[in-house]
Amino acid sequence: MYGAKDGARGLEGTFMWFMEEVGELSAAMRGGTHLEQVLEFADVLAWLATLANIAGVDLEQAMQAKYGLGCPGCKRSPCVCGTQHKP
Amino acid sequence: MYGAKDGARGLEGTFMWFMEEVGELSAAMRGGTHLEQVLEFADVLAWLATLANIAGVDLEQAMQAKYGLGCPGCKRSPCVCGTQHKP
Repeated sequence: MYGAKDGARGLEGTFMWFMEEVGELSAAMRGGTHLEQVLEFADVLAWLATLANIAGVDLEQAMQAKYGLGCPGCKRSPCVCGTQHKP
Repeated sequence: MYGAKDGARGLEGTFMWFMEEVGELSAAMRGGTHLEQVLEFADVLAWLATLANIAGVDLEQAMQAKYGLGCPGCKRSPCVCGTQHKP
């Protein structure tokens, strides 16, 4: 939807926009309405997808690569790792 | 996959984990391999989805609500807003 602008903005500029939206999400989670939270989550995900596009990463394939077989630690879903371990 | 742990960690603790992964993504984009970037994008998205779950937000519905009709500014896809406007 925003391919031409994304290319012109570049990775660093796009990261700053992404972080601005992360800040707005934090504020919405602290005191916003449910709808405000919904819209801020959408913005953060949209800018994350934009960053991924610029970096040449497919978010869906990335999720499959990291989490497609369950928890990367214990290989189970739901995770049965001890709470002292990530995540 | 991580429902029980997410509930115990809470919103604030989960946000801190999310931010740690954002920092790792930033580092990977600056100097990591493509595979490292792929895995960090997956981690950031996974923690964003966890935050959304705790906040009672469905990420897919959120994207549809905000961007389902194209750019929220110009209602077009690709966006034709002027570059002085967000995003």
